[in-house]
Amino acid sequence: MDADAFRTRCDAYREATEIYLNRLFLDNDPWQKLYESMRYSLLSGGKRLRPMLTLECARLGGIRDWRDALPFACALELVHTYSLIHDDLPCMDDDELRRGKPTNHVVFGETMATLAGDALQAEAYRLIAEAPELTEAAKLEAVRSLARASGASGMVAGQVLDLTDYGHDRETLATLCDRKTCFMLKAAAELGCAAANASAELTAALARYASLLGLAFQIRDDLLDVIGDEATFGKPIGSDKAEGKTTFADLLGADGCRAEVRRLTDEACAALENVGDAEFLVALARRLAERTK
Amino acid sequence: MDADAFRTRCDAYREATEIYLNRLFLDNDPWQKLYESMRYSLLSGGKRLRPMLTLECARLGGIRDWRDALPFACALELVHTYSLIHDDLPCMDDDELRRGKPTNHVVFGETMATLAGDALQAEAYRLIAEAPELTEAAKLEAVRSLARASGASGMVAGQVLDLTDYGHDRETLATLCDRKTCFMLKAAAELGCAAANASAELTAALARYASLLGLAFQIRDDLLDVIGDEATFGKPIGSDKAEGKTTFADLLGADGCRAEVRRLTDEACAALENVGDAEFLVALARRLAERTK
Repeated sequence: MDADAFRTRCDAYREATEIYLNRLFLDNDPWQKLYESMRYSLLSGGKRLRPMLTLECARLGGIRDWRDALPFACALELVHTYSLIHDDLPCMDDDELRRGKPTNHVVFGETMATLAGDALQAEAYRLIAEAPELTEAAKLEAVRSLARASGASGMVAGQVLDLTDYGHDRETLATLCDRKTCFMLKAAAELGCAAANASAELTAALARYASLLGLAFQIRDDLLDVIGDEATFGKPIGSDKAEGKTTFADLLGADGCRAEVRRLTDEACAALENVGDAEFLVALARRLAERTK
Repeated sequence: MDADAFRTRCDAYREATEIYLNRLFLDNDPWQKLYESMRYSLLSGGKRLRPMLTLECARLGGIRDWRDALPFACALELVHTYSLIHDDLPCMDDDELRRGKPTNHVVFGETMATLAGDALQAEAYRLIAEAPELTEAAKLEAVRSLARASGASGMVAGQVLDLTDYGHDRETLATLCDRKTCFMLKAAAELGCAAANASAELTAALARYASLLGLAFQIRDDLLDVIGDEATFGKPIGSDKAEGKTTFADLLGADGCRAEVRRLTDEACAALENVGDAEFLVALARRLAERTK
């Protein structure tokens, strides 16, 4: 797939996602400040990787119109956004900036930020349950998949490991990344497949791709943190331990990270072997493996 | 319905609920501390009013065995528990005691308490989606009802009003109570009806009963706060404004509260007029109206 075709499809998915999200939480209710807080983080210009995965998987699964899967795609983005708002709270990572903007609690206060996250999680399930064009079976499968991926042995478990257990060995770090990142990307693929009523085989292949993509993404992230530091501050690789957290860069070194990202990306693409028309997902994996931000 | 029969049924519902909840989050995972935190609040001896409503409504709706509705009943209790944990956080009401025990964040820390709440919310939807004995239509209706009741224009909206807007008039206070309390009790009735695939008429009647019960419950709560203060500290009625919040006791006075609880309880029971076998719900409303704790 050439660069233009890839970008055109990316733009179509992203634009539809932005339009859908932008219509949410606009009512003029007495608790409007809550909506403002939710919209502030929801519309702060993420990559929309999860919605893109859902929409492309729905397309590959043979959905009539991929736009019908937008409620599922955006439900994932709501859960992702709630997790970012709560991750940034003073009692979590205590971050004041995200994507170059003040974090939610810096702008709206801790109370409202906590409540905005809580509300976004509930609203994700509302979007799924109310999706107008999809079957009951599809919606229920989506609820099941999202709840498992984001719950007590999913995303939240990953966050617990991240925040409470410093000095990880490779196994713990792999588990952490699996729960915190891979589970939600896998859910993104599964929700797309559910929307299209795809076969179990196709769903398994796309879920495997998404999960490997998630691990490669996280390792690339850890590497970029280190490379960024080298360029900006001249710090040696592996010294960025301000938070005391072990990263893949610590365990593998920069070259080791590069090799692992390559390997995982190849493996992710290999999972698509029997998936027809998979050029977009292959191109997506290759681009994420080489991204510089 | 005589007192013994009422108590026997209450006990059956409560016991089944406790057993069901007690089986959750017991795995020996590396994030076991999260499970401990979730279980600490989940099993801290609440009234189990929401599960009781769900189970009784399922029974009235003609479900084969009311135990089949336990996943729905307990999903409501998970959401209720998450809301209590988050409500108690330092950035919310900053409470150190609940039901005579240290609050979740006092025992497990703010980080874990926030995450326990987040996980409980997701797990509620997992329980619904995985309920073994119920139909897809029932589960989807339950997801829709719970998400609407607890989301951005439901329970969270009520909490926003409660925390950010002191000095309420009666209309705002009624809206606050409606969103924060009544919506979830209404959902409890709706989930029971969904589990039993009850008719729209029966569902509407039971939802109306539950909503009126919620308002009566809250007014009785406000009254008990004041009566409790009088007995314990000799403070005059209406002076308990340590948090600067207006309550129904401020707006109506003690006698006004009593009269309003009576009126709402009568109205709730009247909503059951065409519901056969409603003695348990009538007895429940009458008991809640006279409760002293």
